[in-house]
Amino acid sequence: MVPRYSRPEMTAIWSPENRYRIWWAIEVFAAEAMGKIGMIPAEDAATIRKAYDDDVLCEIDVAAIDQIEAVTKHDVIAFLTWAGEKLGPERRWLHQGMTSSDVLDTALAVQLKQAAELLIADLDELLAALKRRAFEHKNTPTIGRSHGIHAEPTSFGLKLAQAYAEFDRNRTRLIAARDEIATCAISGAVGTFANVRPEVEAHVAEELGLSIEPISTQVIPRDRHAMFFATLGVIASSIERLATEIRHLQRTEVLEAEEYFSPGQKGSSAMPHKRNPVLTENLTGLARVIRSAAIPAMENVALWHERDISHSSVERFIGPDATITLDFALCRLTSVVQKLLVYPERMQKNLDRMGGLIHSQRVLLALTQAGLSREDSYALVQRNAMKVWESDGQLSLLDLLKKDPEVTGKLSTEQLDGLFNLDYHLKEVDTIFDRVFGEA
Amino acid sequence: MVPRYSRPEMTAIWSPENRYRIWWAIEVFAAEAMGKIGMIPAEDAATIRKAYDDDVLCEIDVAAIDQIEAVTKHDVIAFLTWAGEKLGPERRWLHQGMTSSDVLDTALAVQLKQAAELLIADLDELLAALKRRAFEHKNTPTIGRSHGIHAEPTSFGLKLAQAYAEFDRNRTRLIAARDEIATCAISGAVGTFANVRPEVEAHVAEELGLSIEPISTQVIPRDRHAMFFATLGVIASSIERLATEIRHLQRTEVLEAEEYFSPGQKGSSAMPHKRNPVLTENLTGLARVIRSAAIPAMENVALWHERDISHSSVERFIGPDATITLDFALCRLTSVVQKLLVYPERMQKNLDRMGGLIHSQRVLLALTQAGLSREDSYALVQRNAMKVWESDGQLSLLDLLKKDPEVTGKLSTEQLDGLFNLDYHLKEVDTIFDRVFGEA
Amino acid sequence: MVPRYSRPEMTAIWSPENRYRIWWAIEVFAAEAMGKIGMIPAEDAATIRKAYDDDVLCEIDVAAIDQIEAVTKHDVIAFLTWAGEKLGPERRWLHQGMTSSDVLDTALAVQLKQAAELLIADLDELLAALKRRAFEHKNTPTIGRSHGIHAEPTSFGLKLAQAYAEFDRNRTRLIAARDEIATCAISGAVGTFANVRPEVEAHVAEELGLSIEPISTQVIPRDRHAMFFATLGVIASSIERLATEIRHLQRTEVLEAEEYFSPGQKGSSAMPHKRNPVLTENLTGLARVIRSAAIPAMENVALWHERDISHSSVERFIGPDATITLDFALCRLTSVVQKLLVYPERMQKNLDRMGGLIHSQRVLLALTQAGLSREDSYALVQRNAMKVWESDGQLSLLDLLKKDPEVTGKLSTEQLDGLFNLDYHLKEVDTIFDRVFGEA
Amino acid sequence: MVPRYSRPEMTAIWSPENRYRIWWAIEVFAAEAMGKIGMIPAEDAATIRKAYDDDVLCEIDVAAIDQIEAVTKHDVIAFLTWAGEKLGPERRWLHQGMTSSDVLDTALAVQLKQAAELLIADLDELLAALKRRAFEHKNTPTIGRSHGIHAEPTSFGLKLAQAYAEFDRNRTRLIAARDEIATCAISGAVGTFANVRPEVEAHVAEELGLSIEPISTQVIPRDRHAMFFATLGVIASSIERLATEIRHLQRTEVLEAEEYFSPGQKGSSAMPHKRNPVLTENLTGLARVIRSAAIPAMENVALWHERDISHSSVERFIGPDATITLDFALCRLTSVVQKLLVYPERMQKNLDRMGGLIHSQRVLLALTQAGLSREDSYALVQRNAMKVWESDGQLSLLDLLKKDPEVTGKLSTEQLDGLFNLDYHLKEVDTIFDRVFGEA
Repeated sequence: MVPRYSRPEMTAIWSPENRYRIWWAIEVFAAEAMGKIGMIPAEDAATIRKAYDDDVLCEIDVAAIDQIEAVTKHDVIAFLTWAGEKLGPERRWLHQGMTSSDVLDTALAVQLKQAAELLIADLDELLAALKRRAFEHKNTPTIGRSHGIHAEPTSFGLKLAQAYAEFDRNRTRLIAARDEIATCAISGAVGTFANVRPEVEAHVAEELGLSIEPISTQVIPRDRHAMFFATLGVIASSIERLATEIRHLQRTEVLEAEEYFSPGQKGSSAMPHKRNPVLTENLTGLARVIRSAAIPAMENVALWHERDISHSSVERFIGPDATITLDFALCRLTSVVQKLLVYPERMQKNLDRMGGLIHSQRVLLALTQAGLSREDSYALVQRNAMKVWESDGQLSLLDLLKKDPEVTGKLSTEQLDGLFNLDYHLKEVDTIFDRVFGEA
Repeated sequence: MVPRYSRPEMTAIWSPENRYRIWWAIEVFAAEAMGKIGMIPAEDAATIRKAYDDDVLCEIDVAAIDQIEAVTKHDVIAFLTWAGEKLGPERRWLHQGMTSSDVLDTALAVQLKQAAELLIADLDELLAALKRRAFEHKNTPTIGRSHGIHAEPTSFGLKLAQAYAEFDRNRTRLIAARDEIATCAISGAVGTFANVRPEVEAHVAEELGLSIEPISTQVIPRDRHAMFFATLGVIASSIERLATEIRHLQRTEVLEAEEYFSPGQKGSSAMPHKRNPVLTENLTGLARVIRSAAIPAMENVALWHERDISHSSVERFIGPDATITLDFALCRLTSVVQKLLVYPERMQKNLDRMGGLIHSQRVLLALTQAGLSREDSYALVQRNAMKVWESDGQLSLLDLLKKDPEVTGKLSTEQLDGLFNLDYHLKEVDTIFDRVFGEA
Repeated sequence: MVPRYSRPEMTAIWSPENRYRIWWAIEVFAAEAMGKIGMIPAEDAATIRKAYDDDVLCEIDVAAIDQIEAVTKHDVIAFLTWAGEKLGPERRWLHQGMTSSDVLDTALAVQLKQAAELLIADLDELLAALKRRAFEHKNTPTIGRSHGIHAEPTSFGLKLAQAYAEFDRNRTRLIAARDEIATCAISGAVGTFANVRPEVEAHVAEELGLSIEPISTQVIPRDRHAMFFATLGVIASSIERLATEIRHLQRTEVLEAEEYFSPGQKGSSAMPHKRNPVLTENLTGLARVIRSAAIPAMENVALWHERDISHSSVERFIGPDATITLDFALCRLTSVVQKLLVYPERMQKNLDRMGGLIHSQRVLLALTQAGLSREDSYALVQRNAMKVWESDGQLSLLDLLKKDPEVTGKLSTEQLDGLFNLDYHLKEVDTIFDRVFGEA
Repeated sequence: MVPRYSRPEMTAIWSPENRYRIWWAIEVFAAEAMGKIGMIPAEDAATIRKAYDDDVLCEIDVAAIDQIEAVTKHDVIAFLTWAGEKLGPERRWLHQGMTSSDVLDTALAVQLKQAAELLIADLDELLAALKRRAFEHKNTPTIGRSHGIHAEPTSFGLKLAQAYAEFDRNRTRLIAARDEIATCAISGAVGTFANVRPEVEAHVAEELGLSIEPISTQVIPRDRHAMFFATLGVIASSIERLATEIRHLQRTEVLEAEEYFSPGQKGSSAMPHKRNPVLTENLTGLARVIRSAAIPAMENVALWHERDISHSSVERFIGPDATITLDFALCRLTSVVQKLLVYPERMQKNLDRMGGLIHSQRVLLALTQAGLSREDSYALVQRNAMKVWESDGQLSLLDLLKKDPEVTGKLSTEQLDGLFNLDYHLKEVDTIFDRVFGEA
């Protein structure tokens, strides 16, 4: 975790305080269940539950727990020792028949679920911003580019609508990943429930809003985590896509949009044109970091036999890093989208830059439909288009066509004007918006 | 694609013949739709459709198409030129208003869907094998190991049930990935439907069993493909897990299970013990290959503007490689599971290997429940356990405990015998099986 | 390996014929050494060597070997059976005391060495092309860009010189990687030379131009291969960098350079501007593929004990794929560089595009040196620069400055003209060229 | 960076204090050089240098710098503002004609060089430990395993010697990577030296013990960093290999070696056999983390034009994470090797486990040399070996062979005894040690 790329909401999920709070909840709910099924005295279980409801652990003394751990060399025992002091003799029932992993793995599930929910909220913000800006620019014409080369007109709203659709898919994927990861395992040393009953697991799961893990082996199987981190990697890649689009649009020669800068803000000293897309460049780098978690998460799946602990160190890195960084990146991207400076005039200027060559295909089609062979149509368009090309956009294809008698013999001036109409390219924008947003 | 790691069913999906057949279907269904909406003459559209139904392209002459492509330098045009010869003058309506990517990307979607369906069928076979063997060994006791060290007893059926549950999750993931990837885009040069109508896309999608792509930009967005290949990577990692388990079980010193070898089959020359787990080692390597596709697939997402073609070369590798190799790996794993030689006697021998130390925890618990303090219980068990440990399993913990008066003062011989009962550890197997298989 | 991304020279290295030829050489040289040290009869060894020198295996019958392998299920034995037929009874001494891995791993080393040498030759071609074009455009002014935004002038030759320096480093790395991988291991079942003598290994190594592997364990340790493939990944990333530069330069709005197209070549139908940088886009994708081999190669390092065979399937993919694809990519990049269309006029136009704002920093510096405070200097430059900026480059900063009395009070017209001189930025080009090329 | 996987020496390299100290050195040395060549007044330059030599920045007030940065939004300016206060008016010459990247990139080079040197020292410690233990167990016989299955005898010293050779290669690689990364760039906004002279760069480089970067473009090219992090990934993979070996050796059924535990240390409660190889499992996970930096480092290479800043966020993660974690991992591995508990008796027991089957190959060879055909030899060995195999090692192959008249007709009892001699397998240990260590 790099502090400058983190937000407090997500960082808090990975704090010791939050982890201990979750451990406490697991232990208490487990004791409660044990009380119900007679594994431990019902009244003691009730006392423990009451202590929880009374929030006896309202302040977690992390330093004190650390001190105990320095002696016991065992994190769960250290916590239980510290927490037990808040209880009476009923403390002895805590953790009965359970293993550390029951607590650790279930707690990780809760943290990942909390992280996923924050990320889903982030996506909702981003989607809202994308939608607002997409509708704002629904019919703002701009050149569509394939291979970085002008192709045909599209609208700036469509660019944003495509990003919306992509992040909407990511939202669906993240919900699936969250539901996968949100399982509870309290099943003992090798998952056989030898010393703890399935009812305990069921109760803890219900209280924590988790599913039960149908079969565990001391640990929750790591294919779930692999899927979770792979999903974050895909989302990061979508961030990279939109960030790359904005970086391209902000290039000096293109300048169709820019990351926001305040009126008083200096670019680079005396160079007012030096407004660098540093936020989206930063997002591009963060995307690389986030998706680099996918492979180690997959390598974590093949633990030996019922479990080894090689996954743990990996997760201490990628658990916080991938979620905190993705949270930050999504919020940064949302802010970029919300405040993006959009320059429709420049878009129009770029559309016009090629002297109308972007309409040459359509002229070709019209000539063919007017009865010329494809070859002849091609030759007609080509000889005019080349002049425009060689003039570097100073000549206008429409003008030249209007002066070419072989063309005007087939198409009237009005028809020619119509072929250069941008609306032709935007006529299905409503259809597409309706598909993407359910409204247009 | 490495021939020795491929099966003909999956390889056929990636053959030129299959690709051309899909292109043909797309072009025909598109023409049919254009006929319906009046973009092209209805009777010509009907003629084209009839030609399709009559299977006029029953034999694809790949060499002939290649020859045309060598001249035109364009794969789709080459195909259309060749295919057009099977039609009359209505051939001129083929591909009207479409771009190559409409065909190429939709065709890739069909291939990936076909591949996914074959993989799902593979998973079904694997699941059936795992279930059969799991029930066969539902109550075969074996030692559960954490960190490679004996922990507590479990059953061999539970090991297989865990694999079943994991691959069942993978099945669900693969269905989601298939549904994501199975979209149809026929939307023109930058996805605006300028020269082709959404109805055409809708019809082709329906005929091919695809969803429409809500918004495309000449290409189908690559986050879909990234998710697809990431999912294959997770499945591969699960293969590695089960393969690693089998490799461990086959080690000389463990030998609880072995890959099948036929009676007549030689191991290594004169060494009958040299039966190497080469199939599962091979699967371990294949898993590395399959999941290496995840990162380039994610890197493919951030295409420039409406599209660049950098994704294409990547997909020419990972499309066939990841699906063909995963198909092969799943089938190989299924075969390994089906024919796995399982040695319950050796499992029992290994369970007994530590002279009963694996039951020491339970004795400790019983002494505590019999009223001893945890510290005293621990000391009692420990002093006996150490003798067993130092004897390298030659002494029996149960025997020693029965001779320790401080122990027998708390627990009767019958009670002690009961604590060494393996059934205690298998009492919830039915519960777990019921969770995993819906039956026990 | 994807045929369209392969060249015959590299593909030949990975052909069965080449592999068998190397196996043959290993077996023959081993027999020769055994003859020398008395492990086998000297005259038989001599006969074997003579058969090799007479090229009795001039034509390798791959099909025949395959047929034998189908029966023996063992590739090395199949080959030896077939090759033995070319010999008399001395054939019995072939492979004495050796294991298959002695042959397989040493043969792979030879193949990777051959591949590395071809790649080094590729790099030499690329370096030559870069050098020629760099000197051609040593002093062609062009705008340097940071963050995609105009920064200060540089020369097009410097851009190419930087690529030269980078690929020169890659050449050094590749030589190191080749030398690492080029080792010979003939050490028997677990590397102890129990049944074969170190002298045999030494002789084979010498004949094949390899180093001896100081310590092997049936296999050559895979950290060598990991380093090799990681190095290919770095080279691929450098390819991506140069490819990305060219893609940027070819953008419609920039158009400072273009991939070559022949005069007669059509862009996209009637659109003469539609010259897409498809070669460099393709290289971008290939770079992703090549570097994806790095991780599985690293995962191959941790084989179990003296060896397992999980690396083998990985290497069947990445061995040919990474080398064939990199060879193709380097050659394609060389061709792109050799034939790159460079447009100095457009570079100048882009330099002028901002109305001279790219010189504002230098004016600021000059004003400061002329005695103004930095704050005042800044204010003076800024008020003129903003006008230029708002005019979208229609106004000229130099003109405005010449008309600003506060400026002209400090700097004469001649001085101002001098500040807008591009030569100022190119004055160290010779220095840099000398560093990079050893000449300027 | 995860605190529990870090050591203070390496963490200090990445501290703000160290970074600021390096910035200070760069600025001072640059000013000194500027003084020498007359870019700034010589006496002012001398004053600055003297301040450096007097250590005026002996205490870096990070909080104060942070506060300034909160206002200026620029890290280098904030630092210079703070540091300038320690100087007189000569402070105005600091940073003349330089760009932030000149400082930032050169400082990163210094940090990576420092990190590399610490890692090299770590490797030296590890190599010393491996060598000591290798000589200690030079002739300790142990079974060599291929595929996890007993193959032929080797020595435990050879296992460690192979690790030594591997880490010695890693040392060489790391030195190369360090030398690559240790370059100095002070070349201005786009690397042309427009406002700063090459002599400045040369002087700073020399003072810092760096090479000059022959050609830079505001930034040092990232192929250097890619190679650096890829090299760390290879080293991590070697760590995984040795860690995996130890994990295997500690398995309950194998138990030939164990991570150290102190006499008083508890395993898991009452289970004395529960000594888990948690350190090497941890190292396995850390290896995954370290090598996951390789791909993002390679993705960083293709910056846009002269530079974009996408690499920066990546390096804020992987710079500290990969070096700190590798440093920790190497030290942990060294400690594991130094204190590894080795059990030669158990190695011998495992060697004997198969009743002598591991010698069957050698018997086969001897029979052949005694004149039997290979087929007959095989049949003779096989029929005895199978009995041993079926007895699960209770019968002895040597005993059976001595009782088989067809065998004794060819080989005397003495000869047979000799074939079962472990020394045969260790006869070249000295040769191999001499290759690896230069002594035996």
